[in-house]
This record gives sequence, structure tokens and C-alpha cells, in this order.
Amino acid sequence: MGRPSKALLDKERIGATALALVDEHGDFSVPQIAKRLGVQTASVYHHVEGRGGVVELLRERVVAAIDAAALDLRPWDEALTAWARSYRAAFAAHPRTIPLLTTSPVREPRVLTAYEQAVGMLVEAGFALPDVMPVLTGLENTVLGSALDLAAPETMWEVADEEATPLLAAALAASPVPRADAAFELALAGFVAHCRGLLPA
Amino acid sequence: MGRPSKALLDKERIGATALALVDEHGDFSVPQIAKRLGVQTASVYHHVEGRGGVVELLRERVVAAIDAAALDLRPWDEALTAWARSYRAAFAAHPRTIPLLTTSPVREPRVLTAYEQAVGMLVEAGFALPDVMPVLTGLENTVLGSALDLAAPETMWEVADEEATPLLAAALAASPVPRADAAFELALAGFVAHCRGLLPA
Repeated sequence: MGRPSKALLDKERIGATALALVDEHGDFSVPQIAKRLGVQTASVYHHVEGRGGVVELLRERVVAAIDAAALDLRPWDEALTAWARSYRAAFAAHPRTIPLLTTSPVREPRVLTAYEQAVGMLVEAGFALPDVMPVLTGLENTVLGSALDLAAPETMWEVADEEATPLLAAALAASPVPRADAAFELALAGFVAHCRGLLPA
Repeated sequence: MGRPSKALLDKERIGATALALVDEHGDFSVPQIAKRLGVQTASVYHHVEGRGGVVELLRERVVAAIDAAALDLRPWDEALTAWARSYRAAFAAHPRTIPLLTTSPVREPRVLTAYEQAVGMLVEAGFALPDVMPVLTGLENTVLGSALDLAAPETMWEVADEEATPLLAAALAASPVPRADAAFELALAGFVAHCRGLLPA
């Protein structure tokens, strides 16, 4: 007796296939997923709620690599810094998911629970409630931009004619290595320091 | 007499077609561009140097919307702030170009010239040469992450069960509107303040 077909088409496989498609092509469609899994498109829709449901499977897979325990660290700035580093590494492994996941609303219950934990940590640290989402989102923006940069070549500016752009050539030659880490750590330190200034004295 | 075929296939049209494809599908291929333009794939390669050449046409089109005059402002922090805001708006109009452009080396001479101007402005302001590229890249990371967020829905977290995530629900209800601008301006202010600390006293 063969394996039941349901086992071939669980959410795990749909999410893994969608992620492979996005890693390769920057996007996915439900018919493409069905084709790779050797099933009818309608069968995929039995397991997920439309295209948005597949995006949430993608989100769950990528976010699973973030170290949630970072948010248990104290004080808050150590928690935020460790979380940001882990968050960046998780998304740098799948940079092409970033525009899909950042432009589609978060519905996945486990991801919402992680935000609940982050909000709770910032409230406990003393942040005013209207500052909490801007702090989290501002940090995420820096993290996701830096994740894209981490996935970029080490030589990001190809100066063919040093006489045309001598200052750029000099700045590149003087730049720390690896360049992406230096830029991320600078932005992260700046962000956390600025947030510290938002707290009551 | 009809228009010469060359006019139908100049770099302008190739770049515009590539941008339309990326806006719609998150990626492009040279055969897809040829198909849309009604020409052979080989004909496209007469005008651009491979796929990378098309990426540079994309870069030129998106970057053209950035207000280069912002870099002429003084003092440096006003220049950097105005440039960042204009940069974010340009990329928010084409968010799906972001992973393509951030992971492909910059070769386009006009874009390299804009970097030369930005480096010159920071050197003139007194930044040490090893800090210049981390400052520019850190700012770009925050800008590009924020551009993706600006292209996202205003309701980015769909809390179906307020009892499961009560703190997140409260933080969202207290969040400033529009939420993306609040997060970007917070991160931008923090970044510029931190850079100010890098300058000699």
C-alpha cells in the first residue's frame, strides 16, 4: 500500500515548495506549487486559505529561524539587540521573501504571539504605548534592509573609473570588512540608543 | 515609411518593460522582455550587456526619482535626512525592485556619481573615511526597509483574537497614523543622531 496522498500535500510540503519557488524566482503561484507537487491546483486550496494562506506558511517557515528566547533577555536593550541580529540572519537566508512578507498582513497565530512577547518586553521596560509599534517597526525596517544587504555581494560598488569617482573609491578602500556587518551594527546601535532616549528619565 | 525598429528597442523601452515585469511579478527574464516588445531575445542582447545590464537599467529608472539636490543641502544632517526621505519615496513606488537592486553590484555611472557626491558631502562634514560607507549603507538599509513598509497595508497585523495577544492589540490601537511614517522618522532621527556622535567634537 502506498502512502496516503494527504501526506504528500500537507502544509509542510506546500510551505517548503512555496519557499523554494520564492528563493528561485522571487514569487510563487498556487498552480506552480501544485505542478511541483504533482497534484491539481484545487487540491492545494483544500489545505490553505488562498494565496494569503500560502504567504503565512512562508512567514512561519522563515520566522521559525529567529531565536525567540532573545526576547526573554534583560535589560530590554540586550533583548532587542539579540533579537535584531537573529531576525536579520533568518531573513538573509531567504532575502526574496522580504517584499512578499513585508507587504502582506501578519495573520499567523505563532507570529502574532512573538509580537505579543516583544510588545510586553517593551511595555515592561517603560516605553509609552504609542511608542511601542514605531520602535518595533523601525527596528524591523533596519533589520530587513540589512538582511538584503547581507545577501548582497561583498563588492557592491564596481568602480570602473577611479578618476570619475575618486572619493567613492577611497571610501570603499577604507571601509571595514565585512562591510554589511559594519553598516548593520552602526544602524542597530544608533537605533537602540535613540530608543533609550524615549524612556522616562 | 514606418518607424525604424531600433526606436522600438532602445534602452528606454527595455528598462521600462523590465520595470513593469518586476512591478507585476517580482522578477524579469530577457526572453520575457523580448516577448513583450515583440522582438527576438537576441535583439535585446544587442542593446544591453546581459541580465546585469538590464538590472542597471532598472536601477537607473528607479534612482532617477531621488532628489539629487538634497545632497547639496548643508549642514550634512539636513542633506542626509532630505536625501533619505526622497530615496524612500522613490523605492516605495517600486518595492519589488528592492531585492534585485540590493543584491546586484552597482555599475551604472550616473548612480556611482551620486554616491561620489554623497561620500564627498560626508567627508566635507568631517566623517573619518572608514565611517563613510557604513554610514551610507546603514542609512540605505533603514531607507529600503522603510520603503517596503511604506508599500505595506496600513493594517499590517490582523489580530483575530484580542484575548490571545492583548498587549499587541493595545499597542496597535495606540500607534500613530500613518504608522509607516512614524517608524521611519523614528529610525531616521536615531540614525542621524548616532552619526553625529561619530564626528570629532
